[in-house]
Amino acid sequence: MVITMQPGCPKGDVARVISALRRAGLEPRIISSDPRVVLGVVEEISPAEAERLTQDVGGLDGVEEITSFEKSWKLVSKSFKAETTQVQLGSLSVGGPEVLAAAGPCAVESRENFLETALLLHQAGAGALRGGAFKPRTSPYSFRGMGEEGLKIMAEAREITGLPIITEVLTASEVDLVARYADVLQIGTRNMQNFALLEAVGETDRPVLLKRGMMASIKELLLSAEYIVARGNWQVMLCERGIRTFETETRNTLDLSAVPLLKQYTHLPVVVDPSHAAGKRELVPALALAAVAAGADGILVEVHPRPEEALSDGRQSLRPGQFTDMMAGLRRVAAAVGRQLREAGA
Amino acid sequence: MVITMQPGCPKGDVARVISALRRAGLEPRIISSDPRVVLGVVEEISPAEAERLTQDVGGLDGVEEITSFEKSWKLVSKSFKAETTQVQLGSLSVGGPEVLAAAGPCAVESRENFLETALLLHQAGAGALRGGAFKPRTSPYSFRGMGEEGLKIMAEAREITGLPIITEVLTASEVDLVARYADVLQIGTRNMQNFALLEAVGETDRPVLLKRGMMASIKELLLSAEYIVARGNWQVMLCERGIRTFETETRNTLDLSAVPLLKQYTHLPVVVDPSHAAGKRELVPALALAAVAAGADGILVEVHPRPEEALSDGRQSLRPGQFTDMMAGLRRVAAAVGRQLREAGA
Amino acid sequence: MVITMQPGCPKGDVARVISALRRAGLEPRIISSDPRVVLGVVEEISPAEAERLTQDVGGLDGVEEITSFEKSWKLVSKSFKAETTQVQLGSLSVGGPEVLAAAGPCAVESRENFLETALLLHQAGAGALRGGAFKPRTSPYSFRGMGEEGLKIMAEAREITGLPIITEVLTASEVDLVARYADVLQIGTRNMQNFALLEAVGETDRPVLLKRGMMASIKELLLSAEYIVARGNWQVMLCERGIRTFETETRNTLDLSAVPLLKQYTHLPVVVDPSHAAGKRELVPALALAAVAAGADGILVEVHPRPEEALSDGRQSLRPGQFTDMMAGLRRVAAAVGRQLREAGA
Amino acid sequence: MVITMQPGCPKGDVARVISALRRAGLEPRIISSDPRVVLGVVEEISPAEAERLTQDVGGLDGVEEITSFEKSWKLVSKSFKAETTQVQLGSLSVGGPEVLAAAGPCAVESRENFLETALLLHQAGAGALRGGAFKPRTSPYSFRGMGEEGLKIMAEAREITGLPIITEVLTASEVDLVARYADVLQIGTRNMQNFALLEAVGETDRPVLLKRGMMASIKELLLSAEYIVARGNWQVMLCERGIRTFETETRNTLDLSAVPLLKQYTHLPVVVDPSHAAGKRELVPALALAAVAAGADGILVEVHPRPEEALSDGRQSLRPGQFTDMMAGLRRVAAAVGRQLREAGA
Repeated sequence: MVITMQPGCPKGDVARVISALRRAGLEPRIISSDPRVVLGVVEEISPAEAERLTQDVGGLDGVEEITSFEKSWKLVSKSFKAETTQVQLGSLSVGGPEVLAAAGPCAVESRENFLETALLLHQAGAGALRGGAFKPRTSPYSFRGMGEEGLKIMAEAREITGLPIITEVLTASEVDLVARYADVLQIGTRNMQNFALLEAVGETDRPVLLKRGMMASIKELLLSAEYIVARGNWQVMLCERGIRTFETETRNTLDLSAVPLLKQYTHLPVVVDPSHAAGKRELVPALALAAVAAGADGILVEVHPRPEEALSDGRQSLRPGQFTDMMAGLRRVAAAVGRQLREAGA
Repeated sequence: MVITMQPGCPKGDVARVISALRRAGLEPRIISSDPRVVLGVVEEISPAEAERLTQDVGGLDGVEEITSFEKSWKLVSKSFKAETTQVQLGSLSVGGPEVLAAAGPCAVESRENFLETALLLHQAGAGALRGGAFKPRTSPYSFRGMGEEGLKIMAEAREITGLPIITEVLTASEVDLVARYADVLQIGTRNMQNFALLEAVGETDRPVLLKRGMMASIKELLLSAEYIVARGNWQVMLCERGIRTFETETRNTLDLSAVPLLKQYTHLPVVVDPSHAAGKRELVPALALAAVAAGADGILVEVHPRPEEALSDGRQSLRPGQFTDMMAGLRRVAAAVGRQLREAGA
Repeated sequence: MVITMQPGCPKGDVARVISALRRAGLEPRIISSDPRVVLGVVEEISPAEAERLTQDVGGLDGVEEITSFEKSWKLVSKSFKAETTQVQLGSLSVGGPEVLAAAGPCAVESRENFLETALLLHQAGAGALRGGAFKPRTSPYSFRGMGEEGLKIMAEAREITGLPIITEVLTASEVDLVARYADVLQIGTRNMQNFALLEAVGETDRPVLLKRGMMASIKELLLSAEYIVARGNWQVMLCERGIRTFETETRNTLDLSAVPLLKQYTHLPVVVDPSHAAGKRELVPALALAAVAAGADGILVEVHPRPEEALSDGRQSLRPGQFTDMMAGLRRVAAAVGRQLREAGA
Repeated sequence: MVITMQPGCPKGDVARVISALRRAGLEPRIISSDPRVVLGVVEEISPAEAERLTQDVGGLDGVEEITSFEKSWKLVSKSFKAETTQVQLGSLSVGGPEVLAAAGPCAVESRENFLETALLLHQAGAGALRGGAFKPRTSPYSFRGMGEEGLKIMAEAREITGLPIITEVLTASEVDLVARYADVLQIGTRNMQNFALLEAVGETDRPVLLKRGMMASIKELLLSAEYIVARGNWQVMLCERGIRTFETETRNTLDLSAVPLLKQYTHLPVVVDPSHAAGKRELVPALALAAVAAGADGILVEVHPRPEEALSDGRQSLRPGQFTDMMAGLRRVAAAVGRQLREAGA
């Protein structure tokens, strides 16, 4: 339920509306206050109750209009907030005119390796570094990442390059640890519906990159984002990374329709990870260009200086030269759709 | 890697093999000791190392054969342990000749309601009670269960009926709390790859019901079970509950092929939840019968005394009379495949 | 639109209703005439027109009730005809109390081979023989069947065993040829929406076995059956044979929920092909039993005397001994659900 | 099997190789003759036979190298022919530097309507007109197109605008009729594996637009193209149009990974139909831009002057103004990836 007040109505009017809603057991949130106050009620209410409230509250002074949310998501919806949320990443605003190109290896494997990669990526114009210190692995016997040691290496790479770092957090109990080092907390595809983890990152002040579950619908992705935002953290980027289908030529099927769809439904910025979707490096540049052409606010790709030596995801990691070439293409496509990529090394 | 010793070989031979493996940095586990000792090595080793080990260890006294695991799962595989694991649930052994029929409402909604249902189900011959106290919900605004209060109500129902209770645990931090009340810890479909949670239940001595992720392959299900068993808890039941497909007439598509497939790959018992798969109560009895005919060790169904009043999943909950009728059919089908259901109220 | 006349109303009343509908450009069909006349109008009409007709026709003498079809399928729906259609196959009525067990090799490969198999299957109690003479093949370079020669061999096998034969027809232009030899015309999964072919078999008097497309919804399957029935051929059996999903352990995912769903929506009998779904012979018996337990009117399985020599689908073909064992299991499960299988060689 | 001859080897050498292959029961095809002769053998041969042939033929004079096809498709593969096939459409070469923008209504509904649309599209720079005269419909009661009358209207639109026309053919028996009017024969998604139809269009000299089945893998699409090419018609364009997945926010999921994948596997040009995939007009422009950025040789979109009046697919048809805007965007993105769109009305 969204209550729009008249522009310039006295504060007392707003207070009376809030009181009326609270008497009904609801906790309204102020969605925006300029140029007019808009209040949102996100609790689930029955149609009967909604009608009664609309009559009661609709009759109060200063109320211009009462509408319901179009869809089951609320705080993250365009009905709630029309302009795109900008997520601040260092000097870059994701969701603004600049397009984010975040890159890095699947996992931090050693200090030398990561710093070498970070310098290469900085040189080639990457806007952020990604890398995994805590890795979710399907098998209990696979390499699970370097842990805090990996976080420290990423922090060192940020010192050297000035680039913000994005890394995954796996459990609610590790959120504080990861947030001490990372600029962006990534929620991986297997954790998109780990609700305790969503609430934990919702209580930090760190931007969150929420990856779509590989078999989650758009609606479920938005409701998972709603969990984070409902806890007070509005700095959320959504990430399309491929869904599971019957096609086996690619690891997953990149669902680029998600980009214009999400842009229509939500004010949160949308980034695309073509590496995990494709699973083959030779497909990544074409899909990255397509993502930006479709309106994505950024891309997230895996790059490794020597993919054949990577402990995980080597098959889908770009070589540094391929990344540089792709960046040149991205600059041209971004310009063609009225966006821009930062200059290399800027 | 599986090392099979000769029957009746001296203990010293076994000890020397274990020492040799430890010197190579591996920690062998004794898989079985009667009629012969079988050792398993689950660490990932390179082909070169495997060959070297096979030569070194294969030359030691008492070693009969060294083989590798057929598939990526190890401890849960049939190569590791041929006979079906029996999970003890009160007086019932799941995985033995008796078939488990566990039933109950989606969520515990009130004391009166749950106790009334429990008595009805006991009367109709259910072998265990299921119910949710902590509910994972796609939307942050939906009813999330009664929490510990719900656990207490279930424990009371167990007192009265003597039936063991099965309930879901959502996070690693709540495992101890839930284990204080529940006989079986359920891992829900959205948490099948919540690895921290899998390890936490792997460290308890409570039987675990592991539901297949709605987007997870058979292989991933077995690897998730491996996480639990690798921590020492072998009392794991696998549960097929429907996968996501393009078909929208049912909530999910029940994949009954999973039953004979899992029986071929693993020694763990397999149960089937037709309620969540179908999403429509009128389909549930036919699918429950089919599950038992396919070789399932049990079924898990939702029953509610007045489905139209249920706070969740009412559409797929059987009415008590339907459950009683279904049980009669299950008894006949179980007998047709050489199994049996316990008598009503026994 | 379904117009139900009063029981025992004069023929003139019925004639006047038919005239009124024809004046509106519609062509009513008599769905049943005993104990009362029921007329069906299958043309698509706008809601406005429907309302006008309901008023006009509803006011005529003898009209008891006018309802609309619940779903987009009409002639094949339960609203149209409540009792199950029985498809006559030799002395067996598919859709009656007896369960059909049809079996045979994927393709007719040679006279000796097919006759040998036919005798084995007859001995083991099969109710019909299946085999392919015209094979649809994904690659233009694969074996496409023996053509008319194969049909002749199947006809010879029928002479010898007395069993009816089921075989696929690929194009509208071959319908007459295949219908000269076959007892049942099979429409394969790739042709479920070959509408010209559906109409061609709809104009024969041969029973049709319509396989669900491997990525077709239940609704589409019913609409394809509607194409056949709309041309006057009501002898249609529907066949669930697995759908495409992300799971790769099986060739397709057998969707047994389709059985109770179709039973709820249509009066046409439903059979199940577990061989193509599973793609692995060791899974077939369990799935065949499950199909009958779920209420299927028959099963269709691939059997080959020496599967390792089969030109196609060897991996999923049962050996004769496995078929005999499966038949014993099917008899017990059929009895458990109040059905029966014919005695071996009867 | 691909036999590469030495550059400039005498004709007699080639003849002797061909004779040797024919003696082995094979029918080699000359794949290319300049700068060297390359022969292809597409028949399926066993590994043993392949080895024997390699030895026999490999020893003949003039043979430089014998390789096998990398994949199961042959004539359509890059191993067979490295440079992109250019399909001639009026003055446009699909597969060359120019990008095709084909547009039109789902079905030809009336002469006025189609001619009005054709003029608008010509004005806006479309490179070809699409429209359906014979429509495949899931329900037998839906509008199935105007038939030959519709073809005549399209031919008239070609007269007026000079634009080539693309239209679907549904059955082998109608190929001649449709080929009398159409410039391009379209094979629709439901007919991708209608092998008789594929062979029929393979015997014409008309370019073919082969749509991927909504449930077909990339491999199956290429094998269906192989059916056409094997009959002698090399003028085949492949079309990605969305696949079926669990996501219901879009009609199908557009699989843009198919574009770079197909470019890697085949020499045939690739076009994309975002309209049928998305099912919602507001998503179409973003996806069309993405397709061109990903390397597609063309796009195919539905446009209707008044979508709300369309007899089919209105929800996904662009309005003329949207099409014009999209064309402007396409021009910029095409330029960004080194391609070009023809000028409006040129």
